[in-house]
Amino acid sequence: MENLHHDPVVPVLFALVVILLSAKIGGAVASYFNQPDVLGELTAGIILGNLTLLNYNNFSHIAHNHTIEILSGLGVIILLFEVGLESKIDEMLAVGVQSFLVAIAGVVTPFAIGYYASGIILPDLAEISKVFMGAILTATSVGITARVFKDLNYTKQKEARIVLGAAVIDDILGLIILAIVAGVAQTGSVEASNIAIISTKAIGFVVIALFLGKVFAKTTVKTFSLLKLPGMMLSTMLIFCFFGAYLADQVGLATIVGAFAIGLVLEDVHFEPFKDRSTPEDYIRPIAYFLVPIFFILTGMQVDLTVFANPSILVAALLLTSVAIVGKLICGWCFTSGTKINRAIIGFGMVPRGEVGLIFATVGKSIGVVDDRLYAITVIVVILTTLIPPPVLNFLIKSQPKEEYL
Amino acid sequence: MENLHHDPVVPVLFALVVILLSAKIGGAVASYFNQPDVLGELTAGIILGNLTLLNYNNFSHIAHNHTIEILSGLGVIILLFEVGLESKIDEMLAVGVQSFLVAIAGVVTPFAIGYYASGIILPDLAEISKVFMGAILTATSVGITARVFKDLNYTKQKEARIVLGAAVIDDILGLIILAIVAGVAQTGSVEASNIAIISTKAIGFVVIALFLGKVFAKTTVKTFSLLKLPGMMLSTMLIFCFFGAYLADQVGLATIVGAFAIGLVLEDVHFEPFKDRSTPEDYIRPIAYFLVPIFFILTGMQVDLTVFANPSILVAALLLTSVAIVGKLICGWCFTSGTKINRAIIGFGMVPRGEVGLIFATVGKSIGVVDDRLYAITVIVVILTTLIPPPVLNFLIKSQPKEEYL
Repeated sequence: MENLHHDPVVPVLFALVVILLSAKIGGAVASYFNQPDVLGELTAGIILGNLTLLNYNNFSHIAHNHTIEILSGLGVIILLFEVGLESKIDEMLAVGVQSFLVAIAGVVTPFAIGYYASGIILPDLAEISKVFMGAILTATSVGITARVFKDLNYTKQKEARIVLGAAVIDDILGLIILAIVAGVAQTGSVEASNIAIISTKAIGFVVIALFLGKVFAKTTVKTFSLLKLPGMMLSTMLIFCFFGAYLADQVGLATIVGAFAIGLVLEDVHFEPFKDRSTPEDYIRPIAYFLVPIFFILTGMQVDLTVFANPSILVAALLLTSVAIVGKLICGWCFTSGTKINRAIIGFGMVPRGEVGLIFATVGKSIGVVDDRLYAITVIVVILTTLIPPPVLNFLIKSQPKEEYL
Repeated sequence: MENLHHDPVVPVLFALVVILLSAKIGGAVASYFNQPDVLGELTAGIILGNLTLLNYNNFSHIAHNHTIEILSGLGVIILLFEVGLESKIDEMLAVGVQSFLVAIAGVVTPFAIGYYASGIILPDLAEISKVFMGAILTATSVGITARVFKDLNYTKQKEARIVLGAAVIDDILGLIILAIVAGVAQTGSVEASNIAIISTKAIGFVVIALFLGKVFAKTTVKTFSLLKLPGMMLSTMLIFCFFGAYLADQVGLATIVGAFAIGLVLEDVHFEPFKDRSTPEDYIRPIAYFLVPIFFILTGMQVDLTVFANPSILVAALLLTSVAIVGKLICGWCFTSGTKINRAIIGFGMVPRGEVGLIFATVGKSIGVVDDRLYAITVIVVILTTLIPPPVLNFLIKSQPKEEYL
């Protein structure tokens, strides 16, 4: 009799049924074509979100349900936590220099060629708008790449570790860049102390999470394991994951960076006091099966295909997309490696701009240096740089000689 | 850098950390005192929700976060689905007559003595208000009892099956009672056709879910199993669970009744095409570990201890609480049983009024027959009938001779 007081859980139930069902159908179609599941989920989301084009919009409200949006946010947090659990902190540090170089190149090159190319493609642009377009292209959205690596069981490979490490560093660099360009656009100058504070907090968080966390994690997990309750191991992991994501946000970083860092810190061995033969990944996996597809279906649903309808915007966007891809591809060739490495995988792994690029564009719009036309162009660039890497990475990874891959 | 656009996931992360942590601490304390986990979770919730009494209200917003409320709703849906999975449809039907008698007695007796007792306790009450107080006492909230049975590994016992079956029937009876008393209060009469439609829809849903569902479930699960994707078994169960809960709401029943019915319909054997040695319960359990405590912590947080401060209201409420308990206890003695049965467990299993009693009271308030004083009394009755059964059931179940229990 709960519907007498208009139970708010009901629209969420409906949305979850639609989302989980389309995710699985999309995933099945993608598998059939030998593609990663995530591509199927994104495509299913695009179809669901654009049924309005067929005058059928029964599902469009799903993407705007507040709870579904938050579940989608929890989904990508759980995904990065899971990937963090699968990665070992020492192996990440072993490729630290490469990750750092990739992150730097992934910011400098897209910014430089984004700045010049946008001036050539759109000759009427103001100087500060060109700076902003360059800044937008520096963004890296690691969710898509992390998921492709997971779908293809590739997270433990050197290429994957370099990209994941670069994504963490990139998030810090992104904070600094945004503070600089927003400062320049608004006041014409940059407050060095402000930049110093932002950088210190962000770097401090990562350092503390990685080094001190390594000590505390073991003790805390052990303390938790003393409470002999059903579900204690999973609850412990969720508390760590959500708390890490929360703390990252408090220092200005993305929640997913915090979840990834905490996942890195937690090693299988910490969970031994639970005396269970399952690994931490076994416990978190069902939560991921539930929440992660919500993120990718929603990402797909946010693609508005009508943005492709304006020819002059489309042409500019396609040109800038090429610039955006080339700018990040270079990342793969900016470091030396003692062992054989597939540099194209690293390059394409850095290509997705995702929601991070849109956040930059939204900030630019709010301070008046990104107009409606530039915003529409950015949306297309974000869509294409998000959708192109999954099939390309799939091809690159699967066409590697087997002994190098598995 | 997501906090630049005020990431709405952040307060949810904070709330989840607080909730999961207090649930586990509460559960550990309850275990120490040999009580079911749920009692610890409820108590932890009451403490969290009433820190304002100590002038500390940092956590009170958690209970009002929209997403947390919905996650709590999903939690109790998953709990009843899980209990449904553990119950077998044939075993439920085997105690169908007893369940039906318990449900009928659980409505008639509390209504009759609630009506008379409220007239004696509060002599100034209008006739229709007495009717409403009687109606409020007919409510049964099965979530608490289901969780106590689960915590004590008691769901498969005959007593548990009778109570769970009675709860389903009670939800249908509740719909009819509310339609009658609300109709009488508002128009002075009852539309028989309206009652007939409500009953037909609700009974039709349960019959279809239980009988036709038994056929469709097998075929649908088999079809789903053809999509060989990671997480397919869990997704299939979640889709069934959420869809069942959604459909129940569409015919006017509680979402938890739908989730329970669908859980009943799904049998282990249906999942054999997935060729996995795990049972459906194994797959849903991690989701339950995540979501179910949210429901019980929030239930605790909604207890406002200041309602106990008014002596005249408190006395009336204590008297009505005794009436409410006696009215449901009688359920345990209203049927014959070929085998030995613990009738007190059934009686106390029916005692919790939970949110269902509050829904009745809220409807009564909205049509003006339940005033602020009656509402405050109802809140206390709901709190006490919700908190008393867990320790009593724990005592009754654990003091049974071992051979009858395990």
